[in-house]
This record gives sequence, structure tokens and C-alpha cells, in this order.
Amino acid sequence: MRWRYIFNVVGVLTFFFGLTMLLPIIVGLIYGDPSLVPFVKAMAATLGFGLVLHWVNRGSRTEFISQREGMAIVAIGWTCVGLFGALPFFFGNLFDTFVDAFFESVSGFTTTGASVLTDIESVSRSLLFWRSFIQWLGGMGIIVLSLAILPFLGVGGMQLYKAEVPTPVPDKLKPRIRDTAMLLWKVYAVISLFEVALLMFGGMPLFDALCHTFTTMPTGGFSTKNASIAHYHSLYFDIVIIVFMILAGINFSLHYQVLRGRTLAFWQDSECRFFLGTILVFTLLVTVNVYRNVYDGIGEALRYGAFQVVSILTTTGYTTADYEKWPAMSQLILLISMFLGASAGSTGGGMKCLRVMLFFKYCGRELYYLVHPKAVAHVKIGGKAVPEDVIRSIMGFLGLYTGLFVISSLLLAATGVDFITAIAAVAASIGNIGPGLGLVGPADNYAQIPYMGKWLLSWCMLLGRLEIYTLIIFFAPAFWRK
Amino acid sequence: MRWRYIFNVVGVLTFFFGLTMLLPIIVGLIYGDPSLVPFVKAMAATLGFGLVLHWVNRGSRTEFISQREGMAIVAIGWTCVGLFGALPFFFGNLFDTFVDAFFESVSGFTTTGASVLTDIESVSRSLLFWRSFIQWLGGMGIIVLSLAILPFLGVGGMQLYKAEVPTPVPDKLKPRIRDTAMLLWKVYAVISLFEVALLMFGGMPLFDALCHTFTTMPTGGFSTKNASIAHYHSLYFDIVIIVFMILAGINFSLHYQVLRGRTLAFWQDSECRFFLGTILVFTLLVTVNVYRNVYDGIGEALRYGAFQVVSILTTTGYTTADYEKWPAMSQLILLISMFLGASAGSTGGGMKCLRVMLFFKYCGRELYYLVHPKAVAHVKIGGKAVPEDVIRSIMGFLGLYTGLFVISSLLLAATGVDFITAIAAVAASIGNIGPGLGLVGPADNYAQIPYMGKWLLSWCMLLGRLEIYTLIIFFAPAFWRK
Repeated sequence: MRWRYIFNVVGVLTFFFGLTMLLPIIVGLIYGDPSLVPFVKAMAATLGFGLVLHWVNRGSRTEFISQREGMAIVAIGWTCVGLFGALPFFFGNLFDTFVDAFFESVSGFTTTGASVLTDIESVSRSLLFWRSFIQWLGGMGIIVLSLAILPFLGVGGMQLYKAEVPTPVPDKLKPRIRDTAMLLWKVYAVISLFEVALLMFGGMPLFDALCHTFTTMPTGGFSTKNASIAHYHSLYFDIVIIVFMILAGINFSLHYQVLRGRTLAFWQDSECRFFLGTILVFTLLVTVNVYRNVYDGIGEALRYGAFQVVSILTTTGYTTADYEKWPAMSQLILLISMFLGASAGSTGGGMKCLRVMLFFKYCGRELYYLVHPKAVAHVKIGGKAVPEDVIRSIMGFLGLYTGLFVISSLLLAATGVDFITAIAAVAASIGNIGPGLGLVGPADNYAQIPYMGKWLLSWCMLLGRLEIYTLIIFFAPAFWRK
Repeated sequence: MRWRYIFNVVGVLTFFFGLTMLLPIIVGLIYGDPSLVPFVKAMAATLGFGLVLHWVNRGSRTEFISQREGMAIVAIGWTCVGLFGALPFFFGNLFDTFVDAFFESVSGFTTTGASVLTDIESVSRSLLFWRSFIQWLGGMGIIVLSLAILPFLGVGGMQLYKAEVPTPVPDKLKPRIRDTAMLLWKVYAVISLFEVALLMFGGMPLFDALCHTFTTMPTGGFSTKNASIAHYHSLYFDIVIIVFMILAGINFSLHYQVLRGRTLAFWQDSECRFFLGTILVFTLLVTVNVYRNVYDGIGEALRYGAFQVVSILTTTGYTTADYEKWPAMSQLILLISMFLGASAGSTGGGMKCLRVMLFFKYCGRELYYLVHPKAVAHVKIGGKAVPEDVIRSIMGFLGLYTGLFVISSLLLAATGVDFITAIAAVAASIGNIGPGLGLVGPADNYAQIPYMGKWLLSWCMLLGRLEIYTLIIFFAPAFWRK
């Protein structure tokens, strides 16, 4: 581990991140915010820290990054950005304690969307913009992480995507990451632009349209309104946002292929079919379940059912209905959706459709083996046999995910919150969704979670976002041994 | 599949089962029960059915049983016994509907202990005896199933126990099952005798001591009292029952070894250490959590904490406290215990300690592989490498267990019960525990579960008891193909 090199890269990352704070300052100037001092202070601190970290560790440039160094850069970089992203909230006196500012910032960068803000609409424009913008930045980070970095670090089965990553350079890690990132970010930007346009076409003010696009595309879920998307009472906005949440939950390399002319790419991809199929089935079940029980009209039931299923399954976390008032079955479907999550290679969180698909096939194969113990059967995705080490890695991922969920729920319950809150808050944090059930339900927020619980959930959000392995690996003795 | 042979065996099984109904008749005569007609009718029906099934399929004797036939005998036999065991309850007019009688019977045979009886103490002695006795019979079935049959059917990693099974005959399935069963049943009977003696020594009437032994040893949990063990308000009984619940949760081949003089067998077995260690840690956590919050004295906290942890972890299901009034963390520990369960090869249910241990080691190995992708690492239990196909089988088991838990919870929620009830009732049924949370908490019972829910939970109890594979295999297309 060349720590100097790692800190050098993190320093550069932090510096460039500091530069992005110019944007909220510009927004604040345009909308005439009373004070921009918090941003100036935060920007100075971030730029200064980045420069110093880079300068102290200068002269450690290298063309080759080892797998362990890659993981260290990702984990430390993400934590660092979370810390500095909290500064504007903290200097702006939005919260009494730093942990609240840190929670909000990490919730932003990890595109979770869990909030400790109790009155969103009273916050200044520059801070609201920043809160949304860090989700959009987080989404960019995730795309490059899941499609350009993790496949080469061999994390959680993401090596399956090695072949699909759209880049001409086949071998070296650094150019591949750079080129892949640029291609995918273009796609991300283009789709974002479309959403802004469509929202404005429906009459949403530019500021709202920008902020909501910044939080739809990364499946983030922060809203500039206290009532989230329900604020607008608009079927049009509901539909537009449903469509873009679904798009954000699809593997971005498929978007790239579609934009390049392979129009059937969505349908040809088995994970995408599974993802869209799940949306359909869950929407149907919830609609039938809430019809008559909650909503008198079947149209209304479908509208709110579809929105909530898509919002939770893609791990966005917007709300148009207080689903805690829905029957138990609908709530359970939403809780299951929190674990399932969106597609791998999308900005969504959770376990990811690909892994769950593979899990089903794995279990099916065990039944087959029981009848034919001496046969050789392959688990196939899209007609191709998945290598055994990838299967092992994915089963290990699902195991770690479940195990960490159980342990974290126990720890959160130890802080004194009730049973359902403990389970749902951890599920919603580790899956990067946002709203859960109980104290952290759609009509509440995370402000009431005890101090220690907020640190714990911040850790869960990072854990889920970095696909567990990238963070938990630091606790493996083998990682530190020579 | 030689169906005639399978039905022949099931017929013989049913016939002998019918003979055991003589016992409650004798009990009824001794205690002067008003009517024994229900038992006479049930016994006639059972003996008759068994005889006819055997006679129709006579002449199909064989020395060799295939794996698929073995599974069919286990699954059909258990269901059959569940059906006929319900007859005394049904003819005795204990319930209005057959599903209630069936639920109570299956809950007995699977040693679950979930009850739909609302006033236990008003039931006649013969029926109460029967209700406890079928749990003891179920326990016998499980011992022979998990230590003599499943290892040879290759189910869920139980093949690990092939070497440990105490029998001199090495190859043929039938003599091995017979000899192993006889040895283990002797151990089961000896420990049972000890428990009866110790309970009577403490002043428990013979009838109560017998019935409670019949439901402790199979980790069943039916009591003859409405308040379960709390009825006696006796620290002595609490301690005796805790000790015997723990014994019942230990692999019976270890008991055999201890009785043969290998006194350190418990300690030398890594699963047993894990099981006892878990009891210790969970008891400590619950005690600390309920002390001051629920109980004023630390002694009281330890007494009720230890009893409930042992009762749930061993999947017995006796109660001495209404743990729904405990803090969320304690409830969560009990819910986790429902999944964890006791040792493999014991009469307990749940996922089993061995499998969960292996799961942890599997996840740990994945972390190791991430750092050393080209290394070869073995998952070891007790110093010995576990074959990869056994690991695969165990991971598949855990996957199926979790998957079926999720689907069943969803189905139960669809019948209209609340969120916590749905989750906990399924966890308590599939893990063969008994009491859950919510509507089916320790102070309530399963009477309020809707009609369809009772069928579903009966199925869950069987599924858990037959280690999932043995039942679910019938739904695998490969099973039916030539």
C-alpha cells in the first residue's frame, strides 16, 4: 500500500470537489441569499485541505494502481467528500450538531436521501441547491465506481460487467476508468437534461426542476419541498418522475448502447427484463392491495402504487403517499423492494437485481443437484455460464449484506428506537433508499434518531453505497498482512 | 419412483402410529375422562387406513431405497401422520374446523408448539396427553431424520454428519437407519426419564412432568397450562427446564458419545461451542437490556432473560415472560434466535448453528479471496476442510430458507394480518418455534390467524421441519423427469 499515493489522489479529488462549491455560490447570488459566508468558508477549507494533502504527498505519481490501493482511494475518498460536503450545512447553522450535517451530507453523496431536516422549505436556495447537487455528484461517482472501477477490483460479482464496459482501451486501469467515466457521464448528463426540460415543460420552475433532476437521476430522493413530490399534486410530474426513476435504475451501459443505436438493448438484457418485470408485478400487487382499502378509484391506486413501488425499488425515496397507512402486504412489498434494489451499473442501491436473479438460479441449481448429484450444471445469465468464482463472490455479497443488516438493526435497536424503526431505518440506509417505516416513515424523517444511531446509519449508507466489500475489506486481517 | 413401495411404507408407518393412540386412551381411563370415543374413532380410522394402504401395495418389499423414494416417504409420511394425528382433536370437538385440528397436530409433530387452543386447561387429560405426546413422537422422527436419513440423502449439508453417526453397519441404508434410530432413541428416552424425575423431585405432578418432558425434549413447547411454564412460578422448574432445553438443542450423537464415556464431546465439537456461546452472549445482552427497563433485580432479569433466550434459540417456545413488553433490542435478539435455531442433529429447528457458522466462514473467505484472488482457501469446521459441494448445499439451504420466509410473509400479510405478525408468525413457524410477535406473541396464540393463514403456516412448519429440501424438491421439475 503506497499511502502517499493514495492520499495524493484523495487530495486532488477533494480539491476538485471544493471547486464545485462555486455553483451554489452562483445560485445564492442569483436568488439573493442573505449570506454566502458558509459556502466561502467551506470552499476555502476544502480547497486548502485538498491542496495541502496533495502537496505533502506530491511526487508519488504512478501509472499502476493495485486493487487494494484502488479500494483505499474509493473508501477514503468517499468519506472525505462526505465530511467536507457537510461543511456548508454546518457553517450555515442548519443543524445544532456536526453529526446532523455529516448525516445529511453522506445521505446526499451516497444518494440515499434520508434527511434530518425538519423544515426543508425554510432553507436558503444555495443550501437547497447544494443538498440536491451533491446527490447528482454522488450519482456520477457511483456510475464510474460500479461500471469502471469495481469490475476490475473483482468486487461482489461486478466483474461480470468487464466485457460490457464501453471503452476502447482494454488493459490499463487508469485510462479505462477515465474513458469509461467520460462516456457514461455524457449519457448521465444527456438524460438529466431531458428530465429538466420535461419538468419545465410541465410548469415546474427552473430551480425546482434542476434540483429534482439532480436527485432523480442518482436515485437520490432529496426534494426541495417538505411534502416531496406530493407537493405538486400533478399527475404529469408523477409520470415524468416515474419514467426517469426507472431510467436511473437501469444499467448505464445499456443507456449508452441505446444511444448508440442498439434500440433493443433494454429488452435483450436479462437483468433489465427482471428489473422491469419486478416493477410490473409489484405495482400490480400493491395496486390491488390499496384499491378500496385506501383509494376509491383504481386509477388513483395505480398512480400512487406505481410511484411508490418505483421510488422504493429504484432506491430513490421520493414520496407521493404515506405508505405507512397502506395495508401490511403493501408495506412488506416496499420493504422487500428496499433489499432488492435496482440494476447493477445503475445509480440505484440495494442488493441489485442481477445478484438476486443469480441467487434464485443458485437455489434452483441446488434443487437440481439434489436430484442429480453427479451432474454438472451451470448458473446462466443471458445464456452465458457465470464463472463459479463470480457466483461465490455474489453469494458472499448477499451474505454480508444480510449479516450486516441484522447486526446494524440490533445496534440501532440498542439506541432505544422501536422494533420496526430499527429494521426499516437500517434497510433504508444500507440500501440507499431514504424513507423507511416507523419513526423514519414517509411522513417523518431521521431527526428523531438518537445521536449514536445517526453515526451508525451514516456508516450503513456508505457501506451499501460502496458495495460493502470496498469498505468492509479494511476489517479483514488478510488486507493488512504482507 | 416405486410409488407402491412408498405407499406400502407409509401404510406401515401409519398403522404403528395408530397403535400409539392406545396410550392416551389408557391415560383417559386412569384420569376418568368423560369420553374416549374420539380416540377410539381416530384409532380405528388410522389403523384401518394404514392396513389398507399397506395391503393394497403389498408385495413391494425391497432392500434398496433410492434417494428420491426416501424423500417421498419422509414428506408423505410426515403429512399423513399430521392428518391422522388431528383426528382426536377433531372428533373431540376441540375445534370448529378441521384446519384448526390439523394446525394443532402439525404444530405438534413438527415440534413447533404454535397453538390455536384458547383455553388449554379446560381440555381433557387424554387430549392434553396426546397433544404433548405427538411432540415427543415428532422429536423421535426428527432425530432419525436428521442423523440417519438426511445425511444419506445429501440434504442441506447434513452429509457432514455421515461419519459421526453411531452405527456399525457402514453401507446399506435400511439397516443403518434402523440401528442408528434405536441407539439414538435410547439416548432420547434416557434423557427424558431424567427430566421427568427431576421435575417430579421438585413437586410437579406426574401428569404435568410427563407432558412437559414430552414437549421439552423435542424442543416442542406445548404446555398443559395456559400460562406455559410461568404457571408454576418456580425458579427450580425454570432452571431444570432451561438445562433440558439446552440438552435437547445439542446434537444427539454428542449425547451418545458422552454417554459412552467421551465426557468432553460437547466441548470438542465446534458447533456445540458455537451454540452454547450464542446462548451465553444473547442471554447477557438480553439481561442487560431488560434490567431496569423491565425488571428491578439483576437476578430476575437474568432468570427471565436466560429462559426466553434458551426457549427461543432452541426453538422450544415455552414462555415465562411476555417478551413483547421488553425493549426492541431484546425482541430483535429473540427474532434473530428464531432464524438461528439450535444444533443440527438435535430436535431443534431454525437454520441450525452449523449452517450459520459455515455461512460466517464463507463470508470471511470471500473477504480473503478479494485480497488474494488466486489463493485456494478452505472453509473449515472443527479443523477439517468442508467439501465445496457441502458448502454449496448449505448456502443453497440458507437461500431457500430466506426466500421462502420472504414469500410466506408476503402471503400471510395478504390474508390481512399486520406487518409484525406476518413476519414473526412465519419466522416462528418455519423455524418450528411456536410463539412469535404481534398477534401471535407469547401472551396470544394462533387462533386469530385467518383460515388461509393457518394452512400456510402448517405448510411452513412442515417445510422447516423437513429441512426445506425434502419438501420443496417435489416442486423441482428435475425431480419428476426421467
